[in-house]
Amino acid sequence: MLNGLHHVGIAVADIDAAVHLYTTTLSAGLIRRGHLNGLDFALLDSGGVELELLAAADPDTAIGKFVGQRGPGLHHLAYAVDDIEAEVARLVAEGFEQSGEIRVGVHGTPIVFFHPKTVGGVLTELVQPHA
Amino acid sequence: MLNGLHHVGIAVADIDAAVHLYTTTLSAGLIRRGHLNGLDFALLDSGGVELELLAAADPDTAIGKFVGQRGPGLHHLAYAVDDIEAEVARLVAEGFEQSGEIRVGVHGTPIVFFHPKTVGGVLTELVQPHA
Repeated sequence: MLNGLHHVGIAVADIDAAVHLYTTTLSAGLIRRGHLNGLDFALLDSGGVELELLAAADPDTAIGKFVGQRGPGLHHLAYAVDDIEAEVARLVAEGFEQSGEIRVGVHGTPIVFFHPKTVGGVLTELVQPHA
Repeated sequence: MLNGLHHVGIAVADIDAAVHLYTTTLSAGLIRRGHLNGLDFALLDSGGVELELLAAADPDTAIGKFVGQRGPGLHHLAYAVDDIEAEVARLVAEGFEQSGEIRVGVHGTPIVFFHPKTVGGVLTELVQPHA
């Protein structure tokens, strides 16, 4: 089973402007900023849930293509799991289509995505918070 | 200030299928189902955050138009506030464009929306959890 919503992924055009918007007007707390695989990211706390702001440093990333086609906006929902390999096997057996391999995400721990078409239009991620 | 993320709004095509998906495969807990202003809704708990599933019983609703144009998917983020009128005044002063009047939402308490174009592409709601 999944251990509940871990974070909401938000595609942004300008990471500095987005961090400013979320930490001032929207009252979120900055946890950490960083760079990974062509992305600038910021992790924020909002009432115990993380907001993950993602900006493309490289336009050929998935976030770069998303923002180029649709503009910034809500990107994905991520759920925490204890055993990502077991949960991937379960979700694939229940009809979810895995998108890419299990890899290390911005938290430094394993993540994996599933195609939105197989999850009611929502790009869905699993994150194993502890490696 | 805002008191953190209250719920994630998700537009769905079929409320029964979506409730089944979220409460089984995605391990969320059903809080309540209902109907309001041409919408069928379900409130779910996922790790202490609410997921608000919204299906259009009437295609002329905002959710009906959203699903008709883009298909089901992530719809909005809602933040809890203590005093919705004070927060609306603050956010409008900071450049957010209010979308519609303050009204009663699916929790039976006041809500209001702000245009996504003024909030980095994210349709943003305030909810005052206690009326």
